[in-house]
Amino acid sequence: MIEPLKESSEAETPTRSTSRLADGRTLTHFDDLPGRRHPASDTRGILPVLGSPQIRHDPILDEWVIIASHRQERTHLPSVDKCPLCPSTRGNPTEIPDDDYDVVVFDNRFPSLVVDSGRLSTDGLLAQAPATGASEVICFSSDHGSSFSELPPRRLRTIGRALIDRTVALSQRSAVEYVFCFENRGEEIGVTLHHPHGQIYAYPFVPPRVRRGLDSASRYRERTGGCLFCDVCDAELADRRRVVSETPNFVAFVPWAPRWPLEVHIYARRHVADLSDLSSVELEEAMVLQADVLARFDGAFPPPVPYIAAWLQAPVATHRSESHLRLEAFSPRRSAQKLKFLAGSESAAGVFINDVMPERAAEVLRKAKPAATRLAMEET
Amino acid sequence: MIEPLKESSEAETPTRSTSRLADGRTLTHFDDLPGRRHPASDTRGILPVLGSPQIRHDPILDEWVIIASHRQERTHLPSVDKCPLCPSTRGNPTEIPDDDYDVVVFDNRFPSLVVDSGRLSTDGLLAQAPATGASEVICFSSDHGSSFSELPPRRLRTIGRALIDRTVALSQRSAVEYVFCFENRGEEIGVTLHHPHGQIYAYPFVPPRVRRGLDSASRYRERTGGCLFCDVCDAELADRRRVVSETPNFVAFVPWAPRWPLEVHIYARRHVADLSDLSSVELEEAMVLQADVLARFDGAFPPPVPYIAAWLQAPVATHRSESHLRLEAFSPRRSAQKLKFLAGSESAAGVFINDVMPERAAEVLRKAKPAATRLAMEET
Repeated sequence: MIEPLKESSEAETPTRSTSRLADGRTLTHFDDLPGRRHPASDTRGILPVLGSPQIRHDPILDEWVIIASHRQERTHLPSVDKCPLCPSTRGNPTEIPDDDYDVVVFDNRFPSLVVDSGRLSTDGLLAQAPATGASEVICFSSDHGSSFSELPPRRLRTIGRALIDRTVALSQRSAVEYVFCFENRGEEIGVTLHHPHGQIYAYPFVPPRVRRGLDSASRYRERTGGCLFCDVCDAELADRRRVVSETPNFVAFVPWAPRWPLEVHIYARRHVADLSDLSSVELEEAMVLQADVLARFDGAFPPPVPYIAAWLQAPVATHRSESHLRLEAFSPRRSAQKLKFLAGSESAAGVFINDVMPERAAEVLRKAKPAATRLAMEET
Repeated sequence: MIEPLKESSEAETPTRSTSRLADGRTLTHFDDLPGRRHPASDTRGILPVLGSPQIRHDPILDEWVIIASHRQERTHLPSVDKCPLCPSTRGNPTEIPDDDYDVVVFDNRFPSLVVDSGRLSTDGLLAQAPATGASEVICFSSDHGSSFSELPPRRLRTIGRALIDRTVALSQRSAVEYVFCFENRGEEIGVTLHHPHGQIYAYPFVPPRVRRGLDSASRYRERTGGCLFCDVCDAELADRRRVVSETPNFVAFVPWAPRWPLEVHIYARRHVADLSDLSSVELEEAMVLQADVLARFDGAFPPPVPYIAAWLQAPVATHRSESHLRLEAFSPRRSAQKLKFLAGSESAAGVFINDVMPERAAEVLRKAKPAATRLAMEET
């Protein structure tokens, strides 16, 4: 059990400032402490990347697919001295004009979703629309070699605040139906930039995997009157064999039927829809537990272990009361040398085959020592 | 347009013989021509691999996941001289005791699904059951260096007959709800054996991705009275920009909203539920068009291009009249050096982002010359 966190007064002070990059995109600084200034401006003289991503409706699976052909040219695994997410230097003017930063959020230069006022067009079964929304990048640290799991609680708190800021702001845009905050780490899952960063997508629809979970929750509520997620969390706490780590307000467990060899879900113990519904103590706990779980991934196999970590919040306008805040983190690593791949059964039939017993994975993760995080905990 | 095929009388002769491997698994030969004998027997003295795969119900997504921990130890990328799918030699006794073969089907030594008479057990929200069904391997050729797209029509016909044989036989087992015939090719999508082969899975449920398509078809029929798949096929033929290749009875096209950079679906022009419903001419056409499309994949990027190719047939007992036979083939290759990966948007939200315009992919595939297949066509 991770110890309860103390309330800190300075954490309440807003420390947010916005500027523009050379091609017109917005850059927002979120600082750990108030009083910091960001005077530098972007001198690169870059032009906007041209591209009109679209969404197309798949009539068979009844899902939208994003087609974004301009992303073929996006920056691909640059050398460290050319990293576009590091602070700017004379030799490497980057996406962040300053010589240091805590947390920054900016519009992706090669976006999957963009601000747009286009309309849906349909030709019978073949429907398409502009990919209206937002694709933002969030840099967790100016230190290229760092990672989410190594960050101190003060920084994790700043990241949590930034995610709430973006969720609230993007939810207010008229076309946005869902705000999705996630991190991809590792070349093994397709990451093209190694600098520690996450992404914030604002979709013009509720994503199908989110919708399926909420449809299950709606059916469950009709049948039992209860919350599916609350009851799953209670079942895991009663069973305990798959519980990995806990805080007073959150539980991390390997789910009963995981799709991936390493998979951990973090559930809020109380029924809460969004990160923005959390108290500041709860928010910091959520982020610290996320770091704890990701550190355990790195303790289970030789680091860095590739992973995807995604916060599942409530949609903007639907299913608000059924939604239950949770994080899903998973890795395709199934042994020191081997990865789990999605092949015919997973990709064409939708049936996942997991080579690792969930109870065994939980045992390994419980024993994996999240050294960096524990150190960070002591700092508070 | 691939030319109509001539009816061949010898093709009607059944040429099927069954034997047992040393550990009790079944091996079935399907021969191109009648009269061949298979006298050799398996002398390896191998024992059955122990393992009890199970299926667990994910209460959130309402889907079954297969947990098969004994598969961690399966054969992983052996050298060519140790290939377990080549014909047996003195130095390498394999899964096929004979010194040559045309097409063989046998039970996977490391199965995801097994013959079992166990029962469902549930503890509230946490339900599990034995992974009852079958996992079979189908070897397309004794030639280790060959591939599906290079096979002559006579062999493709034998493969088609074997798929029908297995679909019919497995559908008769009481627990089986769906028979799924597919091929994974390439290390990039996780293939552990390079020898040209496919797989046949018999699931104890209708796979979720299949069920979603059929649910769409049911809703469409209620609304319009028509077949969703027939109407999508007609829409693609009317538009023509995404049509890649055709035969008198089948159409290959890049779908309107593809998830993958290279993705082609083959639809039967007439409303037919299963491979077993095809005439012998239609069956051969289906297999020849599959080889044609896969050869085009190898023409679009430097070969061998990794791919998944899966036949979507009707479930055993449900949705029979809505089902429409089709193949889905797709590759993660998005450039000569780069692959498409499934990251946060795809894996956690279920929203695919495709970097390639479907109409552009179709243009490339139309121009890619399927030399091997054309040569094979001339052989008939």
